[in-house]
Amino acid sequence: MVNLGIIGFGRIGKVHAESLTKYISNASLKSVSDPFIGEEDIKYAKSMGVKNIYKDYTKILDDPEIEAVLICSSTDTHSKISIEALRAGKHVFCEKPIDLNIDKIKEVLEEVEKSKLKFQVGFNRRFDHNFRAIKDVVQSGKIGDPHIIKVTSRDPEVPPIEYVKVSGGIFLDMTIHDFDIVRYLSGSEIEEVYAIGNTLIDPAVGKAGDIDTAIITLKLENGTLAVIDNSREAVYGYDQRAEVFGSEGAISIGNDFNSTAVVSTSDGIVSEKPLYFFLERYMQAYVDEMKEFVQAVEEGIEVPVGAMDGLKAVLIGIAAKKSLKERRPIKLSEINL
Amino acid sequence: MVNLGIIGFGRIGKVHAESLTKYISNASLKSVSDPFIGEEDIKYAKSMGVKNIYKDYTKILDDPEIEAVLICSSTDTHSKISIEALRAGKHVFCEKPIDLNIDKIKEVLEEVEKSKLKFQVGFNRRFDHNFRAIKDVVQSGKIGDPHIIKVTSRDPEVPPIEYVKVSGGIFLDMTIHDFDIVRYLSGSEIEEVYAIGNTLIDPAVGKAGDIDTAIITLKLENGTLAVIDNSREAVYGYDQRAEVFGSEGAISIGNDFNSTAVVSTSDGIVSEKPLYFFLERYMQAYVDEMKEFVQAVEEGIEVPVGAMDGLKAVLIGIAAKKSLKERRPIKLSEINL
Amino acid sequence: MVNLGIIGFGRIGKVHAESLTKYISNASLKSVSDPFIGEEDIKYAKSMGVKNIYKDYTKILDDPEIEAVLICSSTDTHSKISIEALRAGKHVFCEKPIDLNIDKIKEVLEEVEKSKLKFQVGFNRRFDHNFRAIKDVVQSGKIGDPHIIKVTSRDPEVPPIEYVKVSGGIFLDMTIHDFDIVRYLSGSEIEEVYAIGNTLIDPAVGKAGDIDTAIITLKLENGTLAVIDNSREAVYGYDQRAEVFGSEGAISIGNDFNSTAVVSTSDGIVSEKPLYFFLERYMQAYVDEMKEFVQAVEEGIEVPVGAMDGLKAVLIGIAAKKSLKERRPIKLSEINL
Amino acid sequence: MVNLGIIGFGRIGKVHAESLTKYISNASLKSVSDPFIGEEDIKYAKSMGVKNIYKDYTKILDDPEIEAVLICSSTDTHSKISIEALRAGKHVFCEKPIDLNIDKIKEVLEEVEKSKLKFQVGFNRRFDHNFRAIKDVVQSGKIGDPHIIKVTSRDPEVPPIEYVKVSGGIFLDMTIHDFDIVRYLSGSEIEEVYAIGNTLIDPAVGKAGDIDTAIITLKLENGTLAVIDNSREAVYGYDQRAEVFGSEGAISIGNDFNSTAVVSTSDGIVSEKPLYFFLERYMQAYVDEMKEFVQAVEEGIEVPVGAMDGLKAVLIGIAAKKSLKERRPIKLSEINL
Repeated sequence: MVNLGIIGFGRIGKVHAESLTKYISNASLKSVSDPFIGEEDIKYAKSMGVKNIYKDYTKILDDPEIEAVLICSSTDTHSKISIEALRAGKHVFCEKPIDLNIDKIKEVLEEVEKSKLKFQVGFNRRFDHNFRAIKDVVQSGKIGDPHIIKVTSRDPEVPPIEYVKVSGGIFLDMTIHDFDIVRYLSGSEIEEVYAIGNTLIDPAVGKAGDIDTAIITLKLENGTLAVIDNSREAVYGYDQRAEVFGSEGAISIGNDFNSTAVVSTSDGIVSEKPLYFFLERYMQAYVDEMKEFVQAVEEGIEVPVGAMDGLKAVLIGIAAKKSLKERRPIKLSEINL
Repeated sequence: MVNLGIIGFGRIGKVHAESLTKYISNASLKSVSDPFIGEEDIKYAKSMGVKNIYKDYTKILDDPEIEAVLICSSTDTHSKISIEALRAGKHVFCEKPIDLNIDKIKEVLEEVEKSKLKFQVGFNRRFDHNFRAIKDVVQSGKIGDPHIIKVTSRDPEVPPIEYVKVSGGIFLDMTIHDFDIVRYLSGSEIEEVYAIGNTLIDPAVGKAGDIDTAIITLKLENGTLAVIDNSREAVYGYDQRAEVFGSEGAISIGNDFNSTAVVSTSDGIVSEKPLYFFLERYMQAYVDEMKEFVQAVEEGIEVPVGAMDGLKAVLIGIAAKKSLKERRPIKLSEINL
Repeated sequence: MVNLGIIGFGRIGKVHAESLTKYISNASLKSVSDPFIGEEDIKYAKSMGVKNIYKDYTKILDDPEIEAVLICSSTDTHSKISIEALRAGKHVFCEKPIDLNIDKIKEVLEEVEKSKLKFQVGFNRRFDHNFRAIKDVVQSGKIGDPHIIKVTSRDPEVPPIEYVKVSGGIFLDMTIHDFDIVRYLSGSEIEEVYAIGNTLIDPAVGKAGDIDTAIITLKLENGTLAVIDNSREAVYGYDQRAEVFGSEGAISIGNDFNSTAVVSTSDGIVSEKPLYFFLERYMQAYVDEMKEFVQAVEEGIEVPVGAMDGLKAVLIGIAAKKSLKERRPIKLSEINL
Repeated sequence: MVNLGIIGFGRIGKVHAESLTKYISNASLKSVSDPFIGEEDIKYAKSMGVKNIYKDYTKILDDPEIEAVLICSSTDTHSKISIEALRAGKHVFCEKPIDLNIDKIKEVLEEVEKSKLKFQVGFNRRFDHNFRAIKDVVQSGKIGDPHIIKVTSRDPEVPPIEYVKVSGGIFLDMTIHDFDIVRYLSGSEIEEVYAIGNTLIDPAVGKAGDIDTAIITLKLENGTLAVIDNSREAVYGYDQRAEVFGSEGAISIGNDFNSTAVVSTSDGIVSEKPLYFFLERYMQAYVDEMKEFVQAVEEGIEVPVGAMDGLKAVLIGIAAKKSLKERRPIKLSEINL
């Protein structure tokens, strides 16, 4: 049984709390902390059997019974708390991104190496049943050597502009998942990035210095070519698809739906829209990433997504930002000096 | 090169004329006849290179250059003209049904046997790319021994009531194709038929002594079970599907569409309705049944659908009518004494 | 908070125990009983927080804190324990069928009426996301008046022959769910049943007096026609589909899959097989039927599937058995005198 | 009735001959020419009713009865013969590309403008039922303003290396169709092109100075972003798909198949591979482009794909080549001085 604490009890912190308490029998969620925790949240945490509810996360770090912490606080606190937690001897699951600043991520990496503790990054998509299926087929060799990787990733709606402003921009907030998926599916590092983008949905996004529509092409070290297309607003729902095309064939994955119902009328043949919200689509993935983290802690085996994966995805995101700004392809080696 | 004449130049006669003149290089359509042929039709026939256009079909039968005739006249003339044509030494392609009366069909059968001429019946669906595909897989053994055969056959709209009155009823007009398909896919004869039906679409159909909605179950001699469901009006278009389920798997075929377009909006995911009309859906099948008929005539090989197939489908249809009326399963042996 | 006990802690009892303890916050599973309960099961029950683990179910009935019981014991005990539980003042959730004997079911019905307690029958499929979707569309009127209902229900493998012998036969064990679904989707009662069947998979099933392949047609009181096809062994997995065809269109539902992956190679385009096992396919349905039962108990509202639904499905099953034996359509009125 | 001649009687010349003689009633194919015409081809042309068969194409240009010619000779002769034909007063249908050299294309454009004759370029895909369907939906406004256009275009096998050497490279030979499709679907011109590519299939392609795998991103003048992915070898067949994503939804089109058959076995759910060959997939498109050309000639209306379209696609192709070579995005304005 692994004793855990959750630092940051917002939307994603609650998702992990549900997973730990309902689906993972070898996990015990002992404590949660959040500086802004309210009455409702306290009640909710208690109903799940959480013993300690703090405002101050250091109380979790000071608790010798706690073996591992989940860092679900705001992005700007990730690297700092990660280092503190590691120094306190806790295994860490950290939500993505580790930081928007490469140097700070590298400090975390150093601490991880020194500590010999587990450090997992929250790239939940790697645990999704569909992405697992595509990865399995690629690894099986059924489609031969990968030549082209395509990822479609479109959100159902533009996030609040206040969030956009602090998000680090579309590439570090949203595409970061897709960059990780390209690395995951290819098993190769990215060599060069080229990004084009535009503000076609909401001018406020443009005013906030960001774009809402983008296509990013990637040259991989192993010669594979990849492309990601992003939109902040697919009116038909959360659109998460991928395809790997190779020398012996191709594999593609599509969206998930509430039901398989197909209605045929004089207007056409109509099926359901994809699941609208990332929490619906990736609920199973959130449970499974937590299961594997707890297992890694308990059994001392390697985490499925490490700190280096967290660094790499941010590097690619920064290269994409630079590419968009300078209107030219950017080599990863230009970023990661 | 086979010289042909078409007797009856209505809708289906014209379809075959198109096939013979455009797609079948070893066929020459020399003559057509129709007692009601008009100016437009004459012009049309001439544009296709037809030399002789008659009102009287016996002129076609008297022409020694004509090797084969297509009987596309009204159903009540099929058996009479078939016999005359065979006696005149012509190979015959006869539209379904050969007749609504079993004795008359048997007279045709006797004449076919005496004549040693080719006699093909117009069960076009056997030539459809989808039904061919399902037949090929069944024959390949991939799905093992067939256990259950399902046929869905729904027209896009109720035919004119005047037509319903002379059609012989839904089982002999519409389901007859499905009965043939069950025999074709199973390679077995039908032992027993049970039909339920109702008038749910148009009360005028009921007044005309017919039904517009039906489910027919069939016990086959080889032990396979089959079921057909029919409707005279699927508002979303012509619905023609089939499934064979067996000991090692199943195969199903669906409808054809004008395009593969799929539109995703906030209202849902919408694809096209199936092709609305039987001539659109089965155009390729009409060409191919004609090709095989001409080939059978030219090469002296067996026709793909013979007079016996024409008889068997009518027998099943008559059994289904009797079952509906007497509200009990009917053995084929009760009909075919 | 509703206090519950589970009587019978086999496969399905455990499924409900999981649902109650993990997913239903207003339920408390206080006790379980099973005459054959072993060490493993006791450990398992304790890990879920169950306080009392008995061999004798009457201890659950005697416990005044228990408000509701789940009867998950063997079929032959359902009606007896149901009556005892109702007399002990407990709300009852009873697995299907209530009994194989109509008189015994009617005794349960009488007791339910007298008691004013909740009595829900375990027709889990009504709670499945796909069947809910088809029901919603039918009820919405989008497809107009239903004309034809089709249900495909095929198990992945033949059950143990010992089970087949006591199961009541395919119609009361397996098709009973499909009979209920036809009633659920149509909102109408069945008037007449006709069944054909054969032993095409396993001769041992035939020796046990049962069949393994069947087609059942149903005439509904409201004029709708329905057909069910069953097989005890679909080698590609659990096959659960349905279609309702009506005056304004049709709706169909298909199977569920582990992933949406589609692999294209020189061998063809391959997607996954349907979920193999009913517990995988209907897990969400099991949780939701339990949720609604607990809600009905807590809020005093009507149960979604009542004792009368349990009776009706058995009546249809008995009619189907009689139809198969007597080789004729059977009116429900012949059974339910 | 329009009298036509075909210059160049290779594979594509024969395709058009079939269309003109079989499917287009207001066209008369009077003459064909080919310097290498053999006995078989002469016999074949005669069987279609072609009167004159020449080695020297100028005989077609000198025939005053010929109103329009189809230029289906080798690419390096397209512009020269186009200009000669226009000067001889013939309407011209010219296979793509008009030329690999921009100046030569511009000379053709000038001649077209002077002549007031019709000049259509063979971008057949615009006439394909699927691409028509996607265009219709985009134009209807159903998916709002286009934000992202994606085109997948993969050949079933690498062409002969001798062909690769003279083809102008993948962008001018293969992607040229996709560039045209992006212009067609968007209704906008391309502003900037960026291409990445690799030789992943056949080293001989690389030795011939070409690539076999590519991703090309396009910035359109109207702000839309587009991406094309190409492979010279999809082992599962000819892969031709497209998607337009917009402010109100998305539309996608997929491949065509020989049948709708789906086979379910213990190995998985298998459907057919897409049509393997471009002539199979685009046969209907070839007929329809010819129909519209003949109609434009006969009725004096505008051709659906003009000389300017031919120029634009080549310009984009040249920009893509330059981008690949110089490893940077190329503005169209850099090419078209």
